[in-house]
Amino acid sequence: MSRLKSSGAVVLVSGGMDSAVTAAIALSENERVSFLHIRYGARAQRREESAFRALCQFWNVTDFQVTDLPSLSSFGGSALTDSSISLPEGSLDREGIPVTYVPFRNAHFLATATSLAEIKGANRIYIGAVEEDSSGYPDCRRVFYDAFTEAIRQGTKPDADISIVTPVITFRKSRIVQEGLRLGVPFIHTWSCYQGVTDACGHCDSCLLRLRGFSEAGVSDPLEYLKK
Amino acid sequence: MSRLKSSGAVVLVSGGMDSAVTAAIALSENERVSFLHIRYGARAQRREESAFRALCQFWNVTDFQVTDLPSLSSFGGSALTDSSISLPEGSLDREGIPVTYVPFRNAHFLATATSLAEIKGANRIYIGAVEEDSSGYPDCRRVFYDAFTEAIRQGTKPDADISIVTPVITFRKSRIVQEGLRLGVPFIHTWSCYQGVTDACGHCDSCLLRLRGFSEAGVSDPLEYLKK
Repeated sequence: MSRLKSSGAVVLVSGGMDSAVTAAIALSENERVSFLHIRYGARAQRREESAFRALCQFWNVTDFQVTDLPSLSSFGGSALTDSSISLPEGSLDREGIPVTYVPFRNAHFLATATSLAEIKGANRIYIGAVEEDSSGYPDCRRVFYDAFTEAIRQGTKPDADISIVTPVITFRKSRIVQEGLRLGVPFIHTWSCYQGVTDACGHCDSCLLRLRGFSEAGVSDPLEYLKK
Repeated sequence: MSRLKSSGAVVLVSGGMDSAVTAAIALSENERVSFLHIRYGARAQRREESAFRALCQFWNVTDFQVTDLPSLSSFGGSALTDSSISLPEGSLDREGIPVTYVPFRNAHFLATATSLAEIKGANRIYIGAVEEDSSGYPDCRRVFYDAFTEAIRQGTKPDADISIVTPVITFRKSRIVQEGLRLGVPFIHTWSCYQGVTDACGHCDSCLLRLRGFSEAGVSDPLEYLKK
């Protein structure tokens, strides 16, 4: 958590389990919280937005924004935004950066949250990035958030004092599940699957990471899966 | 200029004089150049896009992208994107950060250029930020670009090696004019005015800075002005 007293928090909420737990932590740590959801053309965009709206409703968050970011999908280059690139499935043991990496995506998310925070006078940005037990994206690592924090400090008004809070960045997925259960996160309303289908596919990397997290935590995932 | 050998450059081209001169410099320093124009809902958006397209045509640049960034104008908070906030006029002597500051705008521009560069395998991003003789925006200062460069290094693939080039950041406007004349920049095709009118207004901060630059360089601005 930021050392500065909170003057408000902007929370990036995709609708996935990591951002939902991050949102619950932000709600417990700040009086004034705004949720921010970014439609960037991911395959699961509509499903993710539904999850986001269900979470807003569950927590009775009325200060929320949904905004569009069309550049990433127009550039392509990722299996998450470009349907001509196949989604990998069936294994978490691959080396290197996967084809689902959306180049520098989280910088766009942070820039958007920073602009909103600066306009609102909020001094904390929460993002549910996970470095360990994750997909190996470079923009999910703590060193990136440290560097971006400095960019915010240099690129905003001197009195903005905005810091980035990454409360689950060191957590294994199982600990995220446990923390979510402790905080009453409605996992039934979250969506992790890279596919935008009715039931989660159960075999993309994101489903596999989620299912392993629930399994290691010793609890059942309340979501329905096409195959487990 | 980057110390790395160029594998291609992405140039942020708004259509203003600073970005046009930056583009001319990029074209002189790189074999492979892509122009990137971002529509972010500025008052002069349509006029700026026309300037951008005229510059592409003038230099015969066929590798260009025009992309939308709707979040900044939907958030408001700046006289450039929010018509309910009046544009200041008539003086460059005001203290502090002006109401035309669009919170953290250039971070969005850099993030967009970085994503495009990473997808294209380009290792340089050119941006026509000006620190001296400018409007006093925090995201136009060299310290911001240094910090963002580190964020790019940490948040992209290890082999991306993308650096930010700010060739006019220390220039006074008059030197930008001189450099542009030396490189054959068609200033007639550029647009600096914050207003999106047929002729430049001649009294917003951006017009005043431009006119002072031409005046100090001892040459005439080829643009038409409503009043000079």
